Amino acid sequence: MTKPIVVSGMRPTGRLHLGHLHGALANWVRLQDEATCFFFSADWHALTTSYHQTESIKQAEREMFVDFLAAGIDPQKATLFVQSQVKEHAELFLLLGMITPLGWLERSPTYKEMRENITDRDLALYGFLGYPVLMTADIILYKATRVPVGADQVTHLELAREIARRFNFHYGQVFPEPAPLLTSAPKILGTDGRKMSKSYGNAIHLGESAEETAKKIMPMATDPARKRRTDPGEPDVCGIGFLHKVYSTPETIAWMYAGCRSAGIGCVDCKKRLLETLGPAQDALRERREALLARPQEVEELVQLGTRKARAAAARTMEEVRAAMKL
Amino acid sequence: MTKPIVVSGMRPTGRLHLGHLHGALANWVRLQDEATCFFFSADWHALTTSYHQTESIKQAEREMFVDFLAAGIDPQKATLFVQSQVKEHAELFLLLGMITPLGWLERSPTYKEMRENITDRDLALYGFLGYPVLMTADIILYKATRVPVGADQVTHLELAREIARRFNFHYGQVFPEPAPLLTSAPKILGTDGRKMSKSYGNAIHLGESAEETAKKIMPMATDPARKRRTDPGEPDVCGIGFLHKVYSTPETIAWMYAGCRSAGIGCVDCKKRLLETLGPAQDALRERREALLARPQEVEELVQLGTRKARAAAARTMEEVRAAMKL
Repeated sequence: MTKPIVVSGMRPTGRLHLGHLHGALANWVRLQDEATCFFFSADWHALTTSYHQTESIKQAEREMFVDFLAAGIDPQKATLFVQSQVKEHAELFLLLGMITPLGWLERSPTYKEMRENITDRDLALYGFLGYPVLMTADIILYKATRVPVGADQVTHLELAREIARRFNFHYGQVFPEPAPLLTSAPKILGTDGRKMSKSYGNAIHLGESAEETAKKIMPMATDPARKRRTDPGEPDVCGIGFLHKVYSTPETIAWMYAGCRSAGIGCVDCKKRLLETLGPAQDALRERREALLARPQEVEELVQLGTRKARAAAARTMEEVRAAMKL
Repeated sequence: MTKPIVVSGMRPTGRLHLGHLHGALANWVRLQDEATCFFFSADWHALTTSYHQTESIKQAEREMFVDFLAAGIDPQKATLFVQSQVKEHAELFLLLGMITPLGWLERSPTYKEMRENITDRDLALYGFLGYPVLMTADIILYKATRVPVGADQVTHLELAREIARRFNFHYGQVFPEPAPLLTSAPKILGTDGRKMSKSYGNAIHLGESAEETAKKIMPMATDPARKRRTDPGEPDVCGIGFLHKVYSTPETIAWMYAGCRSAGIGCVDCKKRLLETLGPAQDALRERREALLARPQEVEELVQLGTRKARAAAARTMEEVRAAMKL
């Protein structure tokens, strides 16, 4: 049995928050023990939607790598790298583009959805349309066999599999078809009760202090049906309930369910109890973050080392690609 | 006054013919004395329409460089290189794609025309749509100021200028806008009287022997209105007439005009006279070609050297590009 190869990237577009931590990073930390992992800063992808705001990308990237490490990614186990520093991503993107039908891209649900939802800028751009081609190159360049995805990203990965299959059909077997690694990430809501997201301004960031976290948790939206202290509530629709399920002990979770559903406890009690574990967890992350931020050179070197490793792996694949294509 | 920078490429899709020689190469030979010239094998471009027939590309490329040299390109003066060996073309293609509106590409007359004319394969491909973006990258990567184009390619260059302008607008002045260098190439017809083209099977290739050339010239179509020996003809619509204007002395050209228009000479006389100069010219080319083909290692090294020079120039530009984009 060979180890699975896992590739996953994140766009450096702002500070990470608890949604990223429990949606992706916690999963990456588990995967690094079971698979050969490549985790990267998708800085070229950040351009597909933010080509006009490039000045923040590199700063966000530095902080993102610090967050990766603070969250427990071990550079001895996983390869951390920067997409734009491995030019083979661009080369494979170009080559895959030659065999990718426009219709596959135009019909991609994410493409249609984003063009409908993002209305403050024009996304009818060549690079944006080709986003799934670049994503495919990112993945298959390392011959990934498994790609961690949420349920909403499965169609994207389908497209990557189709493109890999088409390459193999035209030029001979080079790429394994990457299979989805569906992970049931815990639901994390923002302070306003919507999905936690940078663009909603409702995020609790990785490594805010216990105090800062408390300032966001105490006024945070809970079960909207629980209007008064005497109304019973439902933890399974409550942002605080979701966080308890991530941070608290089974005993506390049982206490919360019973107390909330019987109106035996109030939201303030419930939040204070959450902060008993969330606060220290955030402080611990904050300490690791600050220690890493104090040694920027060291983080930079780790990423440079990972980038060299990624480049070597990418170069090997591209030799096979060029040989298969007779280039 | 700084020297103009000229960039031009050719797809390695088959043997070169007299149309290439007088349409492009003769002009390149002139330019190499006046400008800093980069001439390249557009092997990635060959994929945009022939992604399924890659096996012939490298062989065609070797012969193409031999033809360049045999035609008089001097590697001491001009830089010869292979597009796919300078990865910066792919990187800049990717970055320019991020700022190129789809509409600019969809409305490109060449795109529409080729999709209408090439019906034996499906060209609704991402890479094919992006052909002008890659062409733009090819040109501005070397900060070209002048691009030799035929009248039919002016719109393509317009698009390249637009993309360069858009980059400069978003990120600051990096690229000069490449201006067209309109060259009035002599008209060269094929043996059947249509435009000389590989795909029509009517080509006289570079360096066919005098004998082989004669075998194609003698039955070659002439002025279609001159049906009988006694009909007068018109050299200005005749493929043989066009070749005389390239190969013959002013005296012979005058003889041809007078004789043809008065039916004083027949087409056979006229063709024999053409072969007096065309034959030796083809033999001379053939000798140079064969001498070069006998030293493949030497040609390969010339191209490798040129490719290293191109790579260095491309790397310098990409440093500026990344700095401007803050990547």
